[in-house]
Amino acid sequence: MRVSVVGLGPGAGQDLTGRAAAALEECDLIVGYTAYVALLEGRFPGKERRSTGMRREVDRCRMAVEEAVRGRDVALVCSGDSGVYGMAALVYEVSRDYPPIEIEVIPGITAACGGAAVLGAPLTHDFAVVSLSDLMTPWAAIETRLELAARADFVLCLYNPASRGRPDHLKRACDILLREKSPETVCGYVRNIGRAGEEAHTCTLAQLREVEADMFTTVFVGNRQTTLIGGKMVTPRGYLQRGE
Amino acid sequence: MRVSVVGLGPGAGQDLTGRAAAALEECDLIVGYTAYVALLEGRFPGKERRSTGMRREVDRCRMAVEEAVRGRDVALVCSGDSGVYGMAALVYEVSRDYPPIEIEVIPGITAACGGAAVLGAPLTHDFAVVSLSDLMTPWAAIETRLELAARADFVLCLYNPASRGRPDHLKRACDILLREKSPETVCGYVRNIGRAGEEAHTCTLAQLREVEADMFTTVFVGNRQTTLIGGKMVTPRGYLQRGE
Repeated sequence: MRVSVVGLGPGAGQDLTGRAAAALEECDLIVGYTAYVALLEGRFPGKERRSTGMRREVDRCRMAVEEAVRGRDVALVCSGDSGVYGMAALVYEVSRDYPPIEIEVIPGITAACGGAAVLGAPLTHDFAVVSLSDLMTPWAAIETRLELAARADFVLCLYNPASRGRPDHLKRACDILLREKSPETVCGYVRNIGRAGEEAHTCTLAQLREVEADMFTTVFVGNRQTTLIGGKMVTPRGYLQRGE
Repeated sequence: MRVSVVGLGPGAGQDLTGRAAAALEECDLIVGYTAYVALLEGRFPGKERRSTGMRREVDRCRMAVEEAVRGRDVALVCSGDSGVYGMAALVYEVSRDYPPIEIEVIPGITAACGGAAVLGAPLTHDFAVVSLSDLMTPWAAIETRLELAARADFVLCLYNPASRGRPDHLKRACDILLREKSPETVCGYVRNIGRAGEEAHTCTLAQLREVEADMFTTVFVGNRQTTLIGGKMVTPRGYLQRGE
């Protein structure tokens, strides 16, 4: 009957929304990447669960749509938001191959918002979100986006800053940003947002170049106004600066 | 004792997170813009409430910090996320004038994520968020950001596309985007996300130029790959396009 594409927020914990929790309560079947389904262990008892491994995104979405075609209510779970680099678009895309079903996208707290809250308030002005994964986007396109975003003085939030196959992407991204931005630009990064082992750090853009990020790290690069207040990364919106 | 800067999500309804609800349950005092405090009417009984009108952001944050200095636990509420154009940065900024207090930022579903979910899945690839309000940002800076974001082929999410004092900002923004982007670019906009009167529409960039937006409208402009599937605005991440 229906696929609900559910954003669990970071860690699927206290940042889960009421709507996401209701969808998980009401569904017949929970489908997702193994690690995300595991985040729900011990909760929503009695629900059938099916998980698929990394890089099986198309299989996972087809499975969810096929079960809905069979008449079941399926919750396809995503970490963070279901739209931001999540499965929502792919569910719409694969659904074209099947009889019509209902699709509902249920948003969640994405790592940009969740990580920003841990660091302070880096996203209080215009910002751009860029994934450093070149699995599906040519690196040249990523490079162009970084360069133009830096020139436009957007705050930047970087997803997928590294993985086993591409350990140096963050360093390469910093080198591009350093062409336009001061090495003293205030930056921050958060590991394991909303999960065990959550840790946040601030640094300069020059120092960020040397940080060893992993796939559970979200990185923030400030704009020209971003500053540190009591160790927190803060981008002013301009209320005080206009003279109040 | 503490200021919790709480993102209520769009409409403060079913997209409220568990953490935000807990903060509202546990606080002594709820502070916010009149319209946002009104969204909580009938809930969280027994809490003192104080609201201030539009453009009283600095007063509101000072009030919250001063009450915390007096030993109270204050929830300062924001629509959407508390960080994305919210009050989080300003609370850190004004707190420098007072004895130390605890500040916690509690994220919420921002209009980019909430509106995207209503439209389908427009934000499934790199995107930029730009406010068209020139109250605190020179219009020339907004123009530069739009131009460079268009050149970088970011999906765009536009906040504050219009208000009484600047009814033509969306038209002006479209004219800038049309220098770089096709007039056929898939766009969408959502009014009153998560509230009574929620409505979503899709259109082309050429048509978006003629849309009368208001301050409760959030606008989405697709990238070169964004398409319509069954009336929904969908930006492919690339899973199918890489040949699966």
